[in-house]
Amino acid sequence: MITEPRTLPGFMELLPNEQILFEQMKQKIEKVYQRFGFLPLDTPILELSEILLAKAGGETEKQIYRFEKGDTDISMRFDLTVPLAKYVAKNYGNLSFPFRRYQIGKVYRGEKAQKGRFREFYQCDIDIIGDGELGIINDAEIPSVIYQLIKELGFDDFTIRINNRKILNGLFEEIEQKENSVAIMRIIDKIDKIGKEAVKEELQTLGVAEKSIDQIINFITITGTNDEKLQSLQNLGIANEMFQTGLAELTEVVKYIRVFGVPDTNFSVDLTIARGLDYYTGTVYETFLNNYRELGSVCSGGRYENLAEYYTDKKLPGVGISIGLTRLFYKLNELELIKAEKHSMADILIVPMTENMDKPIELASSLRKLDINTEVYLNDKKLKAKMKYADKLKIPYVLVIGDDEITNNQVRVKNMETGEETQVNLIAEEIKAIMKK
Amino acid sequence: MITEPRTLPGFMELLPNEQILFEQMKQKIEKVYQRFGFLPLDTPILELSEILLAKAGGETEKQIYRFEKGDTDISMRFDLTVPLAKYVAKNYGNLSFPFRRYQIGKVYRGEKAQKGRFREFYQCDIDIIGDGELGIINDAEIPSVIYQLIKELGFDDFTIRINNRKILNGLFEEIEQKENSVAIMRIIDKIDKIGKEAVKEELQTLGVAEKSIDQIINFITITGTNDEKLQSLQNLGIANEMFQTGLAELTEVVKYIRVFGVPDTNFSVDLTIARGLDYYTGTVYETFLNNYRELGSVCSGGRYENLAEYYTDKKLPGVGISIGLTRLFYKLNELELIKAEKHSMADILIVPMTENMDKPIELASSLRKLDINTEVYLNDKKLKAKMKYADKLKIPYVLVIGDDEITNNQVRVKNMETGEETQVNLIAEEIKAIMKK
Repeated sequence: MITEPRTLPGFMELLPNEQILFEQMKQKIEKVYQRFGFLPLDTPILELSEILLAKAGGETEKQIYRFEKGDTDISMRFDLTVPLAKYVAKNYGNLSFPFRRYQIGKVYRGEKAQKGRFREFYQCDIDIIGDGELGIINDAEIPSVIYQLIKELGFDDFTIRINNRKILNGLFEEIEQKENSVAIMRIIDKIDKIGKEAVKEELQTLGVAEKSIDQIINFITITGTNDEKLQSLQNLGIANEMFQTGLAELTEVVKYIRVFGVPDTNFSVDLTIARGLDYYTGTVYETFLNNYRELGSVCSGGRYENLAEYYTDKKLPGVGISIGLTRLFYKLNELELIKAEKHSMADILIVPMTENMDKPIELASSLRKLDINTEVYLNDKKLKAKMKYADKLKIPYVLVIGDDEITNNQVRVKNMETGEETQVNLIAEEIKAIMKK
Repeated sequence: MITEPRTLPGFMELLPNEQILFEQMKQKIEKVYQRFGFLPLDTPILELSEILLAKAGGETEKQIYRFEKGDTDISMRFDLTVPLAKYVAKNYGNLSFPFRRYQIGKVYRGEKAQKGRFREFYQCDIDIIGDGELGIINDAEIPSVIYQLIKELGFDDFTIRINNRKILNGLFEEIEQKENSVAIMRIIDKIDKIGKEAVKEELQTLGVAEKSIDQIINFITITGTNDEKLQSLQNLGIANEMFQTGLAELTEVVKYIRVFGVPDTNFSVDLTIARGLDYYTGTVYETFLNNYRELGSVCSGGRYENLAEYYTDKKLPGVGISIGLTRLFYKLNELELIKAEKHSMADILIVPMTENMDKPIELASSLRKLDINTEVYLNDKKLKAKMKYADKLKIPYVLVIGDDEITNNQVRVKNMETGEETQVNLIAEEIKAIMKK
């Protein structure tokens, strides 16, 4: 009996050419993380539910894949942060702080199936965790990682938006609207869509005093260069201590972001971003590709006061970011901003047209020793079928080796892109020499 | 309330230095797979239970992590072969054959918790899938991949054992013991432990005729070089067609293994290996580190007639191998055959001892541009604490940059292994030049 071969909806499964492209993106991200000295980590996909859900609640909890095996209540991780918190708490004595780690791995959320929404997806995270304290300058290094990363992925026109939650929280304290902060943020967030007057009206409906509404509007309509924005924030004359701390931190972060080599064209103080209201406590980041705003933020994160409060008494402040690689890949692919050009891992295909397989196989071994990915077409087919295989897989170079080639110790290297053929001696080094790097 | 930070038993979670070592092994394996032109694949960890269990049964089924989410009956993959079968059946029209793919990923088996047994573990697989047919020469390429792989992992003294299931099956047909084949294999398997006479007795108890017992004993006691073994098999005079086909295939495979560059010291015809009785139908492989036989086979596989019979009518013969990386890593680490020497991804740590962070940070950016993994110690600590961090992480080179260094544009590069310090200009290129590759 035949079972129809199906893949679960919401689970990305790629064809080889797309998979190669996906792996390339993943490797680029990993390479940048390593350049900055982040350590690799690979925690289990399954955890005890009591660990994963120590904090959770609300939407996240509903989406979790949770089940029992024997007597054990198990859940699939829904992000890489909670497992990191457990890991750091558990291995505290064996880690050096600041603990800088990256993790690239799959996480699981049983969301409603929807185009472009994935239930299994890669997150690519970095975090810097301090033991008791962590200098604000770390918050300035993170955007420089984002900067290198997005450049590495091939984009130049992007903006890393930076804010500090203390500024927002301080403002809400100052105008005595702390309890309304979530609702106010939600309204503020719509200003681009509905305009300033509509925002004002909604704030009135919420019961915010006229004077406070003015302060909010003054605040969110601050424009100008990064330095002008910082100056305008100062000029608002808000004495609130948290506001002033936030402003001082943001000023420091902006100063050092530049030292870390991020040009002002690629980062921007943006007072409206908040990144959820209960987790981040200081600096927050979002990253937008300017010509493709519809993608949303492709890399986000921020500073948190205490990573692992559910698992340890130690105070572990941290700062980090996450890239949702699966969704990013899907969107970039859909917009044709990335293209699956490589259909093969082989740089060269050796096509034997002889009974004597010794020479073709030996040549393949020699080429591999020279770090050239080499495949030998081993099946017994007509030349046409073999060339069709090379063509379909878009293997860059093809060598046909027949008895004549073996006798004369000469071979033609065919560049499959240009059609150009170059005759060389049947020696790995000579073949390598004419292949483009 | 504090929840004790625990990891599920049977789930490997490594400290950073071990994780670096694990990643290095994984990368070496991947690199070798790519050298041979295998394509990457990354199928979901979750599949419909009807897909994963289309064939399964017995022990495997009991071990599976299976649960319902909404109305969907879901299972976690227990190997990479069944998902491959589904994938090839599903994407048949979009693949080029022979389809050569590698996959390195986690699989799940809820086995009894036991030291060195893992419920979540990496498999590193390659398979070559033919459309309708697949030349026997492919069976000779696989051992050359194993050979490169084990060498790459740092071992020289290992043996790839090769057999062909048709030889065994043909022998059992010849002596009319097909229905007893499983029981006979189990008895044969014990010969090293219990000796020839005890094996004979057990075969008698099973009801095997005296003459057949002699044939079995003659068969399994064949010794000598690879060529002598093949000759002895010929000399047995077994006319059975399946036996002769198997012998012809094995002879061909041995011939080409040599062409593929595997020396006779690293492979051996072994007539006793069978690798489970219902899946493999031709060539089978096992790989042993000769000084560490207790590890069991570190890389196994073989030829199967039909990959995806549960999902398609197409006949898809294949040959492949699998490495259980998690267990291999665990065992090699336990035996101290591999050692976690790298504790950091950073090649160099810059230790600022100045208020002026511009120079240290700029230098880090310049070093990163030269492909040197660079970390800046960003927290405000005493020099002693900073050096202790470098020491604990075993970062190879340390640069202390204070105001004097900035003024004089000179810096001492400290080799942390030898203690040696070299003074150079405060320029990335000069620093790189004195770092060992």
